[in-house]
Amino acid sequence: MDIITIERKVLEKNDEIALQIRNKLKINKTFAVNIVSSPGSGKTSILERTIESLKSKIQFAVIEGDVQTNFDAERVKKYNVPVVQIVTNGGCHLDAKLVKDALDKIKLKGIKFLVIENVGNLVCPAGYDLGEDHKVVVLSTTEGDDKPLKYPKMFINSSVLIVNKIDLLPYVNCNIKELKENALKINPNLIIFETSCTTGDGIEEWCNWVMMNIIE
Amino acid sequence: MDIITIERKVLEKNDEIALQIRNKLKINKTFAVNIVSSPGSGKTSILERTIESLKSKIQFAVIEGDVQTNFDAERVKKYNVPVVQIVTNGGCHLDAKLVKDALDKIKLKGIKFLVIENVGNLVCPAGYDLGEDHKVVVLSTTEGDDKPLKYPKMFINSSVLIVNKIDLLPYVNCNIKELKENALKINPNLIIFETSCTTGDGIEEWCNWVMMNIIE
Repeated sequence: MDIITIERKVLEKNDEIALQIRNKLKINKTFAVNIVSSPGSGKTSILERTIESLKSKIQFAVIEGDVQTNFDAERVKKYNVPVVQIVTNGGCHLDAKLVKDALDKIKLKGIKFLVIENVGNLVCPAGYDLGEDHKVVVLSTTEGDDKPLKYPKMFINSSVLIVNKIDLLPYVNCNIKELKENALKINPNLIIFETSCTTGDGIEEWCNWVMMNIIE
Repeated sequence: MDIITIERKVLEKNDEIALQIRNKLKINKTFAVNIVSSPGSGKTSILERTIESLKSKIQFAVIEGDVQTNFDAERVKKYNVPVVQIVTNGGCHLDAKLVKDALDKIKLKGIKFLVIENVGNLVCPAGYDLGEDHKVVVLSTTEGDDKPLKYPKMFINSSVLIVNKIDLLPYVNCNIKELKENALKINPNLIIFETSCTTGDGIEEWCNWVMMNIIE
Protein backbone atom coordinates (compact mmCIF):
# COMPACT_ATOMS: atom_id res chain seq x y z
CA MET A 1 0.00 0.00 0.00
CA ASP A 2 1.68 3.18 -1.17
CA ILE A 3 -0.51 6.22 -0.72
CA ILE A 4 2.02 8.71 -2.04
CA THR A 5 2.35 6.86 -5.35
CA ILE A 6 -1.41 6.79 -5.75
CA GLU A 7 -1.65 10.48 -4.95
CA ARG A 8 0.98 11.21 -7.60
CA LYS A 9 -0.91 9.08 -10.10
CA VAL A 10 -4.13 10.96 -9.30
CA LEU A 11 -2.36 14.27 -9.91
CA GLU A 12 -0.75 13.00 -13.13
CA LYS A 13 -4.13 11.91 -14.42
CA ASN A 14 -5.55 15.28 -13.39
CA ASP A 15 -2.83 17.17 -15.25
CA GLU A 16 -3.44 15.08 -18.35
CA ILE A 17 -7.13 16.03 -18.39
CA ALA A 18 -6.30 19.65 -17.54
CA LEU A 19 -4.11 19.74 -20.64
CA GLN A 20 -7.01 18.49 -22.76
CA ILE A 21 -9.22 21.25 -21.31
CA ARG A 22 -6.53 23.87 -21.95
CA ASN A 23 -6.20 22.79 -25.58
CA LYS A 24 -9.96 22.80 -26.08
CA LEU A 25 -10.26 26.31 -24.64
CA LYS A 26 -7.32 27.55 -26.67
CA ILE A 27 -8.79 26.26 -29.94
CA ASN A 28 -12.06 27.95 -29.04
CA LYS A 29 -10.28 31.20 -28.04
CA THR A 30 -11.78 31.10 -24.56
CA PHE A 31 -9.90 32.80 -21.75
CA ALA A 32 -10.39 30.92 -18.47
CA VAL A 33 -9.79 31.70 -14.82
CA ASN A 34 -10.10 29.49 -11.76
CA ILE A 35 -11.25 31.60 -8.81
CA VAL A 36 -10.13 30.27 -5.44
CA SER A 37 -10.52 31.48 -1.85
CA SER A 38 -11.75 30.64 1.64
CA PRO A 39 -15.52 30.34 2.11
CA GLY A 40 -17.18 33.74 2.11
CA SER A 41 -14.33 35.84 0.68
CA GLY A 42 -16.63 37.06 -2.08
CA LYS A 43 -15.90 34.89 -5.13
CA THR A 44 -19.52 34.85 -6.30
CA SER A 45 -20.02 38.56 -5.59
CA ILE A 46 -16.95 39.42 -7.67
CA LEU A 47 -18.25 37.17 -10.43
CA GLU A 48 -21.64 38.92 -10.35
CA ARG A 49 -20.01 42.35 -10.52
CA THR A 50 -17.80 41.18 -13.40
CA ILE A 51 -20.74 39.85 -15.38
CA GLU A 52 -22.66 43.11 -14.81
CA SER A 53 -19.68 45.11 -16.09
CA LEU A 54 -18.69 42.99 -19.07
CA LYS A 55 -21.74 41.08 -20.30
CA SER A 56 -22.46 43.65 -23.03
CA LYS A 57 -18.89 43.23 -24.32
CA ILE A 58 -18.16 39.50 -24.13
CA GLN A 59 -19.95 36.18 -23.73
CA PHE A 60 -19.42 34.39 -20.43
CA ALA A 61 -19.78 30.85 -19.22
CA VAL A 62 -19.55 29.81 -15.58
CA ILE A 63 -18.76 26.57 -13.78
CA GLU A 64 -19.72 26.66 -10.11
CA GLY A 65 -18.08 24.32 -7.62
CA ASP A 66 -19.67 23.75 -4.23
CA VAL A 67 -19.51 21.13 -1.51
CA GLN A 68 -23.31 21.30 -1.28
CA THR A 69 -26.19 23.39 -2.68
CA ASN A 70 -26.62 25.18 -6.01
CA PHE A 71 -26.99 28.65 -4.45
CA ASP A 72 -24.10 30.11 -6.42
CA ALA A 73 -25.37 28.84 -9.76
CA GLU A 74 -28.78 30.35 -8.95
CA ARG A 75 -27.12 33.71 -8.27
CA VAL A 76 -25.33 33.58 -11.64
CA LYS A 77 -28.30 32.26 -13.63
CA LYS A 78 -30.25 35.49 -13.24
CA TYR A 79 -27.75 37.18 -15.58
CA ASN A 80 -28.70 34.77 -18.38
CA VAL A 81 -25.22 33.32 -18.48
CA PRO A 82 -24.70 29.59 -19.18
CA VAL A 83 -23.80 28.03 -15.86
CA VAL A 84 -23.11 24.46 -14.73
CA GLN A 85 -23.13 23.60 -11.04
CA ILE A 86 -20.76 20.93 -9.77
CA VAL A 87 -21.69 19.63 -6.31
CA THR A 88 -18.70 17.77 -4.89
CA ASN A 89 -20.71 16.12 -2.08
CA GLY A 90 -18.08 16.71 0.53
CA GLY A 91 -15.12 16.91 -1.85
CA CYS A 92 -12.76 19.73 -0.89
CA HIS A 93 -11.70 20.88 -4.38
CA LEU A 94 -12.60 20.68 -8.05
CA ASP A 95 -10.50 18.42 -10.23
CA ALA A 96 -9.99 18.48 -13.99
CA LYS A 97 -12.31 15.53 -14.62
CA LEU A 98 -15.23 17.30 -12.95
CA VAL A 99 -14.52 20.44 -14.96
CA LYS A 100 -14.19 18.48 -18.21
CA ASP A 101 -17.61 16.88 -17.65
CA ALA A 102 -19.13 20.27 -16.81
CA LEU A 103 -17.54 21.80 -19.91
CA ASP A 104 -19.18 19.13 -22.07
CA LYS A 105 -22.52 20.61 -21.06
CA ILE A 106 -21.64 24.11 -22.28
CA LYS A 107 -21.84 25.27 -25.91
CA LEU A 108 -18.38 26.80 -26.05
CA LYS A 109 -18.69 28.49 -29.46
CA GLY A 110 -18.55 32.25 -28.97
CA ILE A 111 -17.71 32.02 -25.25
CA LYS A 112 -14.82 34.40 -24.65
CA PHE A 113 -14.52 34.13 -20.88
CA LEU A 114 -14.93 31.04 -18.74
CA VAL A 115 -15.02 31.47 -14.98
CA ILE A 116 -14.56 28.41 -12.81
CA GLU A 117 -15.53 29.20 -9.23
CA ASN A 118 -13.84 26.64 -7.04
CA VAL A 119 -14.97 25.22 -3.70
CA GLY A 120 -14.31 27.62 -0.80
CA ASN A 121 -11.02 26.30 0.51
CA LEU A 122 -7.68 28.11 0.66
CA VAL A 123 -5.68 24.88 0.86
CA CYS A 124 -6.65 21.93 -1.33
CA PRO A 125 -7.64 23.59 -4.65
CA ALA A 126 -4.09 25.00 -4.89
CA GLY A 127 -2.74 21.64 -6.09
CA TYR A 128 -5.21 21.02 -8.91
CA ASP A 129 -4.76 22.34 -12.44
CA LEU A 130 -8.19 22.70 -14.06
CA GLY A 131 -6.91 23.76 -17.47
CA GLU A 132 -7.39 27.45 -16.64
CA ASP A 133 -5.14 30.23 -17.93
CA HIS A 134 -4.78 31.70 -14.47
CA LYS A 135 -5.71 31.01 -10.90
CA VAL A 136 -7.17 34.11 -9.25
CA VAL A 137 -7.05 34.04 -5.45
CA VAL A 138 -9.51 36.19 -3.53
CA LEU A 139 -8.69 37.23 0.03
CA SER A 140 -11.04 39.40 2.03
CA THR A 141 -9.69 42.05 4.38
CA THR A 142 -11.65 40.41 7.21
CA GLU A 143 -9.42 37.34 7.00
CA GLY A 144 -6.33 39.28 8.13
CA ASP A 145 -3.06 40.37 6.55
CA ASP A 146 -1.05 37.27 7.53
CA LYS A 147 -2.89 34.78 5.35
CA PRO A 148 -0.50 34.77 2.35
CA LEU A 149 2.26 33.61 4.70
CA LYS A 150 0.05 31.03 6.41
CA TYR A 151 -1.40 29.53 3.20
CA PRO A 152 1.47 30.13 0.74
CA LYS A 153 0.81 27.47 -1.90
CA MET A 154 -2.37 29.15 -3.14
CA PHE A 155 -0.55 32.47 -3.51
CA ILE A 156 2.43 30.83 -5.25
CA ASN A 157 0.16 29.12 -7.78
CA SER A 158 -2.04 32.16 -8.51
CA SER A 159 -1.33 34.93 -11.03
CA VAL A 160 -3.77 37.42 -9.56
CA LEU A 161 -4.74 38.38 -6.01
CA ILE A 162 -8.01 40.20 -5.46
CA VAL A 163 -8.11 41.81 -2.02
CA ASN A 164 -11.86 42.05 -1.49
CA LYS A 165 -14.09 43.85 1.05
CA ILE A 166 -11.81 46.91 1.23
CA ASP A 167 -14.88 48.85 2.42
CA LEU A 168 -14.53 46.98 5.74
CA LEU A 169 -10.92 48.12 6.34
CA PRO A 170 -11.93 50.79 8.91
CA TYR A 171 -13.59 48.10 11.05
CA VAL A 172 -11.14 45.20 10.90
CA ASN A 173 -7.65 44.48 12.14
CA CYS A 174 -5.99 44.29 8.71
CA ASN A 175 -3.08 46.33 7.38
CA ILE A 176 -3.55 46.22 3.62
CA LYS A 177 0.01 47.42 2.96
CA GLU A 178 1.35 44.48 4.98
CA LEU A 179 -1.11 42.10 3.34
CA LYS A 180 0.23 43.06 -0.09
CA GLU A 181 3.85 42.92 1.06
CA ASN A 182 3.25 39.45 2.49
CA ALA A 183 1.63 38.30 -0.74
CA LEU A 184 4.49 39.65 -2.88
CA LYS A 185 7.04 38.03 -0.55
CA ILE A 186 5.42 34.69 -1.41
CA ASN A 187 4.95 35.47 -5.11
CA PRO A 188 6.61 38.62 -6.50
CA ASN A 189 4.75 38.24 -9.81
CA LEU A 190 1.25 38.56 -8.33
CA ILE A 191 -0.97 41.15 -9.96
CA ILE A 192 -3.02 42.70 -7.16
CA PHE A 193 -6.43 44.37 -7.30
CA GLU A 194 -8.29 45.90 -4.37
CA THR A 195 -12.05 45.60 -4.62
CA SER A 196 -15.31 46.11 -2.79
CA CYS A 197 -18.41 44.46 -4.18
CA THR A 198 -20.49 46.71 -1.92
CA THR A 199 -19.17 50.02 -3.30
CA GLY A 200 -17.93 48.72 -6.65
CA ASP A 201 -14.41 50.04 -6.02
CA GLY A 202 -11.68 48.33 -8.03
CA ILE A 203 -14.04 46.27 -10.18
CA GLU A 204 -13.21 48.36 -13.26
CA GLU A 205 -9.46 47.73 -12.88
CA TRP A 206 -10.04 44.00 -12.50
CA CYS A 207 -12.38 43.96 -15.50
CA ASN A 208 -9.79 45.85 -17.58
CA TRP A 209 -7.31 43.09 -16.80
CA VAL A 210 -9.85 40.47 -17.92
CA MET A 211 -10.49 42.35 -21.16
CA MET A 212 -6.74 42.61 -21.85
CA ASN A 213 -6.61 38.80 -21.76
CA ILE A 214 -9.57 38.11 -24.03
CA ILE A 215 -8.44 36.37 -27.20
CA GLU A 216 -9.77 37.95 -30.41
CA MET B 1 -5.50 0.20 -6.95
CA ASP B 2 -8.38 1.03 -4.67
CA ILE B 3 -8.23 4.55 -3.33
CA ILE B 4 -11.47 4.33 -1.37
CA THR B 5 -10.26 1.33 0.62
CA ILE B 6 -7.03 3.10 1.46
CA GLU B 7 -8.91 6.21 2.51
CA ARG B 8 -11.07 4.08 4.81
CA LYS B 9 -7.98 2.45 6.26
CA VAL B 10 -6.42 5.86 6.87
CA LEU B 11 -9.55 6.97 8.71
CA GLU B 12 -9.74 3.74 10.70
CA LYS B 13 -6.13 4.18 11.80
CA ASN B 14 -6.90 7.81 12.67
CA ASP B 15 -9.91 6.82 14.79
CA GLU B 16 -7.82 4.23 16.62
CA ILE B 17 -5.24 6.87 17.61
CA ALA B 18 -8.02 9.37 18.43
CA LEU B 19 -9.43 6.83 20.87
CA GLN B 20 -6.02 6.52 22.56
CA ILE B 21 -5.88 10.32 22.90
CA ARG B 22 -9.43 10.43 24.28
CA ASN B 23 -8.58 7.80 26.91
CA LYS B 24 -5.39 9.60 27.89
CA LEU B 25 -7.23 12.90 28.29
CA LYS B 26 -10.06 11.27 30.24
CA ILE B 27 -7.64 9.61 32.69
CA ASN B 28 -5.97 12.99 33.17
CA LYS B 29 -9.35 14.79 33.56
CA THR B 30 -8.56 17.14 30.69
CA PHE B 31 -11.46 18.62 28.74
CA ALA B 32 -10.51 19.08 25.06
CA VAL B 33 -11.98 21.00 22.15
CA ASN B 34 -10.97 21.01 18.49
CA ILE B 35 -11.60 24.49 17.07
CA VAL B 36 -12.30 24.50 13.33
CA SER B 37 -13.15 27.23 10.80
CA SER B 38 -12.20 28.90 7.53
CA PRO B 39 -8.98 30.94 7.53
CA GLY B 40 -9.43 34.23 9.34
CA SER B 41 -12.70 33.51 11.15
CA GLY B 42 -11.06 34.32 14.45
CA LYS B 43 -10.05 31.00 16.02
CA THR B 44 -6.85 32.39 17.55
CA SER B 45 -8.53 35.59 18.73
CA ILE B 46 -11.23 33.58 20.50
CA LEU B 47 -8.55 31.43 22.06
CA GLU B 48 -6.68 34.53 23.28
CA ARG B 49 -9.86 35.98 24.79
CA THR B 50 -10.64 32.63 26.43
CA ILE B 51 -7.18 32.37 27.99
CA GLU B 52 -7.43 35.97 29.26
CA SER B 53 -10.79 35.16 30.88
CA LEU B 54 -10.03 31.77 32.36
CA LYS B 55 -6.29 31.49 33.00
CA SER B 56 -6.68 32.44 36.66
CA LYS B 57 -9.24 29.64 37.12
CA ILE B 58 -7.86 26.70 35.13
CA GLN B 59 -4.66 25.50 33.50
CA PHE B 60 -4.61 25.49 29.70
CA ALA B 61 -2.59 23.74 27.06
CA VAL B 62 -2.76 24.56 23.36
CA ILE B 63 -1.92 22.69 20.18
CA GLU B 64 -1.73 24.97 17.13
CA GLY B 65 -2.18 23.57 13.63
CA ASP B 66 -1.06 25.60 10.64
CA VAL B 67 -0.18 24.92 7.02
CA GLN B 68 2.84 27.18 7.46
CA THR B 69 4.31 29.57 10.08
CA ASN B 70 4.18 29.53 13.87
CA PHE B 71 2.40 32.90 14.15
CA ASP B 72 -0.50 31.45 16.13
CA ALA B 73 1.75 29.71 18.64
CA GLU B 74 3.63 32.98 19.11
CA ARG B 75 0.36 34.76 19.85
CA VAL B 76 -0.55 32.16 22.47
CA LYS B 77 2.92 31.91 24.03
CA LYS B 78 2.74 35.41 25.49
CA TYR B 79 0.09 34.17 27.93
CA ASN B 80 2.60 31.69 29.41
CA VAL B 81 0.51 28.74 28.33
CA PRO B 82 2.18 25.50 27.16
CA VAL B 83 1.78 25.46 23.38
CA VAL B 84 2.96 23.11 20.64
CA GLN B 85 2.89 24.22 17.03
CA ILE B 86 2.18 21.63 14.33
CA VAL B 87 3.13 22.82 10.84
CA THR B 88 1.45 20.55 8.30
CA ASN B 89 3.59 21.77 5.37
CA GLY B 90 0.68 21.99 2.98
CA GLY B 91 -1.51 19.42 4.72
CA CYS B 92 -5.11 20.60 4.85
CA HIS B 93 -6.10 19.23 8.27
CA LEU B 94 -4.71 17.87 11.52
CA ASP B 95 -4.92 14.13 12.09
CA ALA B 96 -4.83 12.17 15.32
CA LYS B 97 -1.22 11.04 14.84
CA LEU B 98 0.00 14.64 14.64
CA VAL B 99 -1.98 15.54 17.75
CA LYS B 100 -0.71 12.47 19.64
CA ASP B 101 2.90 13.45 18.89
CA ALA B 102 2.22 17.03 19.95
CA LEU B 103 0.53 15.83 23.14
CA ASP B 104 3.64 13.83 24.03
CA LYS B 105 5.48 17.16 24.31
CA ILE B 106 3.05 18.57 26.87
CA LYS B 107 3.13 17.83 30.60
CA LEU B 108 -0.54 16.97 30.95
CA LYS B 109 -0.69 16.73 34.74
CA GLY B 110 -2.92 19.53 36.04
CA ILE B 111 -4.02 20.66 32.57
CA LYS B 112 -7.79 21.07 32.73
CA PHE B 113 -8.46 22.46 29.28
CA LEU B 114 -6.76 21.49 26.01
CA VAL B 115 -7.50 23.57 22.95
CA ILE B 116 -6.54 22.17 19.57
CA GLU B 117 -6.70 24.91 16.94
CA ASN B 118 -7.04 23.20 13.58
CA VAL B 119 -5.82 24.35 10.17
CA GLY B 120 -8.09 27.03 8.64
CA ASN B 121 -10.31 24.92 6.41
CA LEU B 122 -14.07 24.48 6.63
CA VAL B 123 -14.02 21.22 4.65
CA CYS B 124 -11.30 18.66 5.36
CA PRO B 125 -10.89 18.82 9.18
CA ALA B 126 -14.57 17.80 9.52
CA GLY B 127 -13.69 14.16 8.83
CA TYR B 128 -10.90 13.74 11.37
CA ASP B 129 -11.47 12.81 15.00
CA LEU B 130 -8.58 14.16 17.08
CA GLY B 131 -9.71 12.63 20.37
CA GLU B 132 -11.41 15.87 21.42
CA ASP B 133 -14.57 16.00 23.53
CA HIS B 134 -16.18 18.47 21.12
CA LYS B 135 -15.56 20.12 17.81
CA VAL B 136 -16.26 23.85 18.01
CA VAL B 137 -16.88 25.50 14.64
CA VAL B 138 -16.28 29.24 14.31
CA LEU B 139 -18.05 31.15 11.55
CA SER B 140 -17.55 34.87 11.15
CA THR B 141 -20.45 37.10 10.11
CA THR B 142 -18.35 38.32 7.16
CA GLU B 143 -18.53 34.84 5.61
CA GLY B 144 -22.30 35.06 5.06
CA ASP B 145 -25.37 33.35 6.48
CA ASP B 146 -25.53 30.53 3.88
CA LYS B 147 -22.32 28.76 4.92
CA PRO B 148 -23.86 26.09 7.20
CA LEU B 149 -25.88 24.87 4.20
CA LYS B 150 -22.90 25.03 1.82
CA TYR B 151 -20.42 23.28 4.15
CA PRO B 152 -22.77 21.03 6.17
CA LYS B 153 -20.40 18.29 7.34
CA MET B 154 -18.49 20.61 9.66
CA PHE B 155 -21.72 21.79 11.28
CA ILE B 156 -23.06 18.23 11.59
CA ASN B 157 -19.88 17.08 13.35
CA SER B 158 -19.60 20.06 15.71
CA SER B 159 -21.29 20.45 19.09
CA VAL B 160 -20.81 24.20 19.31
CA LEU B 161 -21.06 27.05 16.80
CA ILE B 162 -19.40 30.35 17.64
CA VAL B 163 -20.69 33.12 15.39
CA ASN B 164 -17.80 35.57 15.57
CA LYS B 165 -17.27 39.21 14.50
CA ILE B 166 -20.83 40.21 15.41
CA ASP B 167 -19.52 43.79 15.73
CA LEU B 168 -19.29 43.81 11.90
CA LEU B 169 -22.99 42.95 11.40
CA PRO B 170 -23.96 46.56 10.51
CA TYR B 171 -21.45 46.53 7.64
CA VAL B 172 -21.90 43.10 6.08
CA ASN B 173 -24.61 41.29 4.17
CA CYS B 174 -25.35 38.67 6.84
CA ASN B 175 -28.67 37.94 8.52
CA ILE B 176 -27.67 36.37 11.83
CA LYS B 177 -31.18 34.99 12.44
CA GLU B 178 -31.01 33.14 9.12
CA LEU B 179 -27.45 32.03 9.82
CA LYS B 180 -28.57 30.41 13.07
CA GLU B 181 -31.67 28.88 11.48
CA ASN B 182 -29.51 27.44 8.70
CA ALA B 183 -27.07 26.01 11.24
CA LEU B 184 -29.87 24.43 13.31
CA LYS B 185 -31.44 22.99 10.15
CA ILE B 186 -28.16 21.11 9.59
CA ASN B 187 -27.65 20.21 13.25
CA PRO B 188 -30.53 20.88 15.68
CA ASN B 189 -28.29 20.08 18.67
CA LEU B 190 -25.78 22.87 18.03
CA ILE B 191 -25.09 25.15 20.99
CA ILE B 192 -24.63 28.63 19.55
CA PHE B 193 -22.67 31.57 20.95
CA GLU B 194 -22.41 35.02 19.37
CA THR B 195 -19.09 36.72 19.98
CA SER B 196 -16.92 39.67 19.08
CA CYS B 197 -13.26 39.54 19.99
CA THR B 198 -13.07 43.30 19.35
CA THR B 199 -15.75 44.28 21.89
CA GLY B 200 -15.59 41.12 24.04
CA ASP B 201 -19.31 40.46 23.58
CA GLY B 202 -20.34 36.85 24.16
CA ILE B 203 -16.96 35.69 25.43
CA GLU B 204 -18.33 35.30 28.96
CA GLU B 205 -21.17 33.01 27.80
CA TRP B 206 -18.71 30.87 25.83
CA CYS B 207 -16.32 30.71 28.80
CA ASN B 208 -19.18 29.70 31.10
CA TRP B 209 -19.86 26.77 28.78
CA VAL B 210 -16.19 25.78 28.93
CA MET B 211 -16.20 25.93 32.75
CA MET B 212 -19.34 23.78 32.90
CA ASN B 213 -17.41 21.08 31.06
CA ILE B 214 -14.25 21.14 33.13
CA ILE B 215 -13.78 17.83 34.95
CA GLU B 216 -13.06 18.17 38.66
